[in-house]
Amino acid sequence: MRPNIHPSARVDEARLWDRHEQMAAIGGFVNEQGHRGVNRAAFSAEDIGARRLLIGWAKARGWAISSDPIGNIFVRRPGRDPDAAPVLTGSHMDSQPRGGRFDGIYGVLAGLEALEAMDDAGVETERPIDLVAWSNEEGGRYQPGTMGSNTFVGGYDFEKMLATRDGDGIELREALAETMSAMKDFAGDLQDRPFNFPIAACVEAHIEQGPRLEADNRTIGVVTGIQGIRWYLTKVFGRTDHAGTTPLRQRKDAVQATLRVIQGFNELMHDPDDVLRFTVARMFVRPNAPSSVANEVEFTVDFRHPDIAVLKERGDKLPGLAAELAAPCTVEMNEMMNMAPTVFPDELINTVEAATRNLGHPYMHLPSGAFHDAGYIAKVAPTTMIFIPCKRGVSHNEAEDATPADCAAGAQVLADTLVALANR
Amino acid sequence: MRPNIHPSARVDEARLWDRHEQMAAIGGFVNEQGHRGVNRAAFSAEDIGARRLLIGWAKARGWAISSDPIGNIFVRRPGRDPDAAPVLTGSHMDSQPRGGRFDGIYGVLAGLEALEAMDDAGVETERPIDLVAWSNEEGGRYQPGTMGSNTFVGGYDFEKMLATRDGDGIELREALAETMSAMKDFAGDLQDRPFNFPIAACVEAHIEQGPRLEADNRTIGVVTGIQGIRWYLTKVFGRTDHAGTTPLRQRKDAVQATLRVIQGFNELMHDPDDVLRFTVARMFVRPNAPSSVANEVEFTVDFRHPDIAVLKERGDKLPGLAAELAAPCTVEMNEMMNMAPTVFPDELINTVEAATRNLGHPYMHLPSGAFHDAGYIAKVAPTTMIFIPCKRGVSHNEAEDATPADCAAGAQVLADTLVALANR
Repeated sequence: MRPNIHPSARVDEARLWDRHEQMAAIGGFVNEQGHRGVNRAAFSAEDIGARRLLIGWAKARGWAISSDPIGNIFVRRPGRDPDAAPVLTGSHMDSQPRGGRFDGIYGVLAGLEALEAMDDAGVETERPIDLVAWSNEEGGRYQPGTMGSNTFVGGYDFEKMLATRDGDGIELREALAETMSAMKDFAGDLQDRPFNFPIAACVEAHIEQGPRLEADNRTIGVVTGIQGIRWYLTKVFGRTDHAGTTPLRQRKDAVQATLRVIQGFNELMHDPDDVLRFTVARMFVRPNAPSSVANEVEFTVDFRHPDIAVLKERGDKLPGLAAELAAPCTVEMNEMMNMAPTVFPDELINTVEAATRNLGHPYMHLPSGAFHDAGYIAKVAPTTMIFIPCKRGVSHNEAEDATPADCAAGAQVLADTLVALANR
Repeated sequence: MRPNIHPSARVDEARLWDRHEQMAAIGGFVNEQGHRGVNRAAFSAEDIGARRLLIGWAKARGWAISSDPIGNIFVRRPGRDPDAAPVLTGSHMDSQPRGGRFDGIYGVLAGLEALEAMDDAGVETERPIDLVAWSNEEGGRYQPGTMGSNTFVGGYDFEKMLATRDGDGIELREALAETMSAMKDFAGDLQDRPFNFPIAACVEAHIEQGPRLEADNRTIGVVTGIQGIRWYLTKVFGRTDHAGTTPLRQRKDAVQATLRVIQGFNELMHDPDDVLRFTVARMFVRPNAPSSVANEVEFTVDFRHPDIAVLKERGDKLPGLAAELAAPCTVEMNEMMNMAPTVFPDELINTVEAATRNLGHPYMHLPSGAFHDAGYIAKVAPTTMIFIPCKRGVSHNEAEDATPADCAAGAQVLADTLVALANR
């Protein structure tokens, strides 16, 4: 090991960008506005194409390639101690149906770039470093999403996952078998890995998928955790009446009741620090006729916060508040999801911050607003994330964009962070 | 003429109810809740069946039957002066696709009952009285609605109406020819009437289609006019963003902007007298995904009032207020309909009130919240309406209901009113 050489110095912006372009061609399309999107569902021909590219690049470096039973790919850059638990880095290669060119794939390519930079810099590490490409994070073809990472940690039952079917009725078992067979062909020697093998630490690089870094002119987001979410389905029941004949005081107008309920939620959710996320974005009105007072409104509540105490206190108040404000209408409010926040360990956050400062990149601490595979790995190993800016925070959309320089900066921070962790 | 005999004394509640039952069987169905509905589209086989029944009852009395070119049926009870302009009464026999047993048909049957009561009481009038059944008030199969009455007064162009097509592409010309041919068969001697012949006065009986009479325990509504309506389509444009990542202050959330706009409209439309009708009952949210901030909300505004000054003053303020409250979202607000209120003449209102008081029925004055054929006839002749209660104000619905006693009470008021008017 040459301790004074940081592998970040050998991160190659052009090489990394060229790989983004190669990956973007697999499932790539151009939308009406001329934006280049990607449609690369997990276990599809496009996903298999992406796996082939990644395996080819790994083979060119002579790195061992392995896979666990759900098709998560691991590429190992060896450490001095072959028996030490590896440091893990990576993300996913599948996309939303009309997804962008950076969500997920950036974390895989930045990890690959970091490993190559270590080779090019002649940096050795104590622990091995495993680059991972998690299967099916997006859940586009087979649900649920984060299938690879959450099955790896035992959160999803593998046999149940195998029995899921896509929209054409094809069992995952079948699509996965095809994918595994193709990977064996590409890799030549594809080793088997078990689920949930020991991991010393995990770092996932990702585009922010939000606007904060860009708005604050920061290149790096030092991610402090993944905020928790509570997700509710709310139904407000009123009575339909003739809009021309029924006096307003005699109505049970579900639209007006919904208005009062959301206004009350807004007040409860007010946050001067603007950290809390409260969103009503899906709504159905029934019978939805201009002259028939609504007898039902259905709407969703998406409430997120990094602090579990805030999630609990404010979230628990919602159903009672809704019932009170909706009167004389009635309310049914069902919690459909409740995920506690993930808090990343200070030691890892500090390691990322130190690497960032050393490189001189402007940065900020922030929690992740979106879910990531790292949120599941955090249940079994010390984990953190590194964010880079994306244009106007747009993601899950063909307009998703990031700059070559920011992609490279994130790979630099990742490379130096991985080396620091792999030497602990 | 025997001036001391009121025909109301001979109104036969059982006969009137029996005819409701016979009419309800034509196009009748029973819904999931056991309510008996009617599906009787204009110019359908069911409509022809209703026309056959009505013509049969008229023939049994020996009254002359005539029709204008759009199939409006006129049944004449002669007056002493055969050349005098008639007093008109009636309504429509078609229904909404899932309509009730009283909307429209009640006004035709109450008119028929009034004429029969006059015969049975031996009452003569100076002017003839014409019972009318207007074609296609509901606009269920052929649009627009109020086709018969508004074509009669010249508001719609007859040739344009003939060229309209139903959902199967059948021209009204064809369906109307079938209807006319069947009516000729039923009537034997079906006379031709021109559009817009002179009318001395017009009174339409109808169920209230609102809850006020029932709520106030009144049997008769003395209708003062038909309120005006302004109808707007509003589109609020924002920007879609990730619900987990985008700080609330950076959003252009079309749902939240819509909330502010409707709340502002509520304040503008506040009416301590509860006469004003303001309704938002149709709404579409886009993209309508729980975790994607809405970039567009489309909603309708239905605003009605009997006073044209109120309609103008408050209605004109809506677009500017919407733009102000929606910021930073933008708004497009288009007025789709603007119908001035109809004010019925005091003389006719007083005649109805006098008849009602004389009969001892509890009553109240009220404007009509819904449109009626009478609103169009009011453009060419002194016109008013008589309302009876309907259960909970429900109409355009299988649950629409009225009592035999209330139906008879309305026919009594109508009979005495018609005689008073026909002797002027």
